Amino acid sequence: MSDPLSRLVGELSRLPGIGPKTATRLAHHLLKVSDADAKVLAASILEVKEKLFHCSRCNGITDIDPCAICMDEQRDATRICVVEEPFNIQPIERTREYHGRYHVLMGALSPQRGIGPEQLRISGLLERLDGIDEVILATNPDVEGEATALYLARLLKPRNIEVTRLAFGMPVGGDIEYTDEVTLARSLTGRRAI
Amino acid sequence: MSDPLSRLVGELSRLPGIGPKTATRLAHHLLKVSDADAKVLAASILEVKEKLFHCSRCNGITDIDPCAICMDEQRDATRICVVEEPFNIQPIERTREYHGRYHVLMGALSPQRGIGPEQLRISGLLERLDGIDEVILATNPDVEGEATALYLARLLKPRNIEVTRLAFGMPVGGDIEYTDEVTLARSLTGRRAI
Repeated sequence: MSDPLSRLVGELSRLPGIGPKTATRLAHHLLKVSDADAKVLAASILEVKEKLFHCSRCNGITDIDPCAICMDEQRDATRICVVEEPFNIQPIERTREYHGRYHVLMGALSPQRGIGPEQLRISGLLERLDGIDEVILATNPDVEGEATALYLARLLKPRNIEVTRLAFGMPVGGDIEYTDEVTLARSLTGRRAI
Repeated sequence: MSDPLSRLVGELSRLPGIGPKTATRLAHHLLKVSDADAKVLAASILEVKEKLFHCSRCNGITDIDPCAICMDEQRDATRICVVEEPFNIQPIERTREYHGRYHVLMGALSPQRGIGPEQLRISGLLERLDGIDEVILATNPDVEGEATALYLARLLKPRNIEVTRLAFGMPVGGDIEYTDEVTLARSLTGRRAI
């Protein structure tokens, strides 16, 4: 790790999903690009650290507080979509199907990893319930996301709020033959009249 | 591309093999790591651009000129191993089988991509032939690397230098059944007495 190239390979290898071979390939690519391009990349890395932080209301990533979504008066203020991580917001925004606000839990319940309700941003959610008609639980479709959704549903339902969960089912463009039985069972349970 | 996060995702997407999804994942990871870790990565990128350049003798990547390999008097000064790219040197060094010097062509002949002999660092190689007994052609085992090796062999052989080529054959740990016929044919042609 004594020379600049090894140091860069080492730092790149620390990124998730980047092994030593990919890190080496990326480092050699960076050696080849113009100084200007390398500077822009380095500056972009520093810029996100300097300028971005979590919205004090929804915990989403933002450079203003409260964030643009929380401040947007055009959005439906009666709905909150609860997600695990800040980067779960963009995929939902891209659907253009949802126009309410968000709340980021900053994780999911996980007894194995020692993450209980007190580690999640749940109290902030409870403080935001005035005037809310519906809370959509958009945690991940895995064991932890399901546990988190059930926990929140139990917490929210007594407050006279409609609590919904994203639908489980076959992916569009999928194939019944290749859909696992758990998903297919959920797909059947969730069947709708057409 | 207006906000810092999109800018970082955009810059990361320009790296080879990094698509928009991986770039987004990496950007969110960088948002999560400590400021210090992000700064070290950014500094490492800038450092390779500032401190590293091509050795004036062998074209390898170095922070001193001539590079450590060219300057190492312990190495066999009668052999030059010719490679296409600077990053081909390290894999050969790791074998610990070769103790001579290197010459990086900075590419390979490719009529399709308009790369002729004049685009490669061949003249520098010819200037280094005094006292050289063997030139090992370690260009890639593909069409371009082969064409480059043949071109160099024709150029070097009249100069009374032994010109050799890396062996083609089955990868160690491979399986005859899964070896393609071209490789297997080369493996047969190159068979050796044991």
